[in-house]
Amino acid sequence: MRRIMLRIAYDGTDYVGWQKQPNGLAVEEVLNKALRDLTGEQIEVIGASRTDSGVHALDNVAVFDTESPIPAKKFSFALNRRLPNSVVVRSSCEVKPNFHPRRVNCVKTYEYRIFNDEHPNPLNRRYTYFYHHDIDVDAMREAAHYLEGEHNFVTFCSAGAQVTTTVRTIYSAEVIRGAGYDENCIIIRLKGNGFLYNMVRIIAGTLLQAGTHAIEPARMAEIIESRDRGQAGPTLPPQGLTLVHIEYPEGNR
Amino acid sequence: MRRIMLRIAYDGTDYVGWQKQPNGLAVEEVLNKALRDLTGEQIEVIGASRTDSGVHALDNVAVFDTESPIPAKKFSFALNRRLPNSVVVRSSCEVKPNFHPRRVNCVKTYEYRIFNDEHPNPLNRRYTYFYHHDIDVDAMREAAHYLEGEHNFVTFCSAGAQVTTTVRTIYSAEVIRGAGYDENCIIIRLKGNGFLYNMVRIIAGTLLQAGTHAIEPARMAEIIESRDRGQAGPTLPPQGLTLVHIEYPEGNR
Repeated sequence: MRRIMLRIAYDGTDYVGWQKQPNGLAVEEVLNKALRDLTGEQIEVIGASRTDSGVHALDNVAVFDTESPIPAKKFSFALNRRLPNSVVVRSSCEVKPNFHPRRVNCVKTYEYRIFNDEHPNPLNRRYTYFYHHDIDVDAMREAAHYLEGEHNFVTFCSAGAQVTTTVRTIYSAEVIRGAGYDENCIIIRLKGNGFLYNMVRIIAGTLLQAGTHAIEPARMAEIIESRDRGQAGPTLPPQGLTLVHIEYPEGNR
Repeated sequence: MRRIMLRIAYDGTDYVGWQKQPNGLAVEEVLNKALRDLTGEQIEVIGASRTDSGVHALDNVAVFDTESPIPAKKFSFALNRRLPNSVVVRSSCEVKPNFHPRRVNCVKTYEYRIFNDEHPNPLNRRYTYFYHHDIDVDAMREAAHYLEGEHNFVTFCSAGAQVTTTVRTIYSAEVIRGAGYDENCIIIRLKGNGFLYNMVRIIAGTLLQAGTHAIEPARMAEIIESRDRGQAGPTLPPQGLTLVHIEYPEGNR
């Protein structure tokens, strides 16, 4: 029995999220089906990030155990032939049999994309949040700075989360305008050791309030301290959010 | 009666193309319906570029005549409230009553995007052509250079085109790697006074042959001269193609 790790990209638009739900198709179900077709085994993957409905990934991680003789590196190609083109396995490798992608320290990078123009762009509408009022990116950047470090981020956590602690560390919180092809795209990039339920989308909504001068950037410090969800901004919609990378320390797998 | 010009962006994935077809929904039909709902008039738009099924636009142009009192600049907002989010009117203005978007000289810019990586990326699959073998961008650029200038481009024209002449001028033919967010994206950008049926997609297929060393870059000169479709490369699929801009000389409208 070997444990195989997959790195997976997906367009979350047409899925109910990573995790199985009664109301539609989940990304993990699509992977399980492809793995069962390929190996004949009743495989259930364990995912690193259980992304919400409509949220995308360029690099989520999942592991599974198999008796199959397929070389570890070949799983990506064999699975991609069996997956819809909205889900792609970018790489596959063998990991230690006890490696669990949610029980090992890691660094996750999320990006939230805002498309800031007079009219929406149909070619990025699935992957950005459209916002047409002027945005002051410098004010967003100043507000984002307060997020860096170890904090109790309960302010930015939606109800319904099951966690033992709401303390997390954000290593960097960047706001970039014109990243990529489109000068009107604003990217909020957060790198941290973990994120609470809806945390990135609520942080994005709060930074946008700073960007529209609805709040002063320095208010961010008080908002974090308040530990009151009512002090933060709205939860921005899922299509702007992409899990772009998960980094595990080499020794841990 | 006024003539109004619209600049339109659309995601061509789910359309049969610009022009009405028996087998599905066309972009012009969606615009006509929105205009009829808005004005109560039996409007039929005249489009500048009749893009094929699956081809996208960031800036196609259409005109229509109306008795409606709506200010010319307000049509974009009023129409966008009535259009599906795959079609967006970016601007609207009044033009001369005899302005016809296909009978006036203009400069059109098309981009063909190739995503060159080991595995496809689900977040750009609708807007790029995935190609996984190594590509020599310098060789593509060298081959592209031969396209610039006035030529008879019949080599790069699919059968079935109804045109009086196959002579066109390409003002610039650029090949750019890493344009935009993704380093693995190669963009072929052609600027010209007009393009024949499937011309950009056949040119892209021929440049890709240069990029994979299937042909020498200098062969491009002979391929153009041959006036033989069989000498050129394959027609690449529509999803990589986007009409990015149409420029009309100010005096002509």
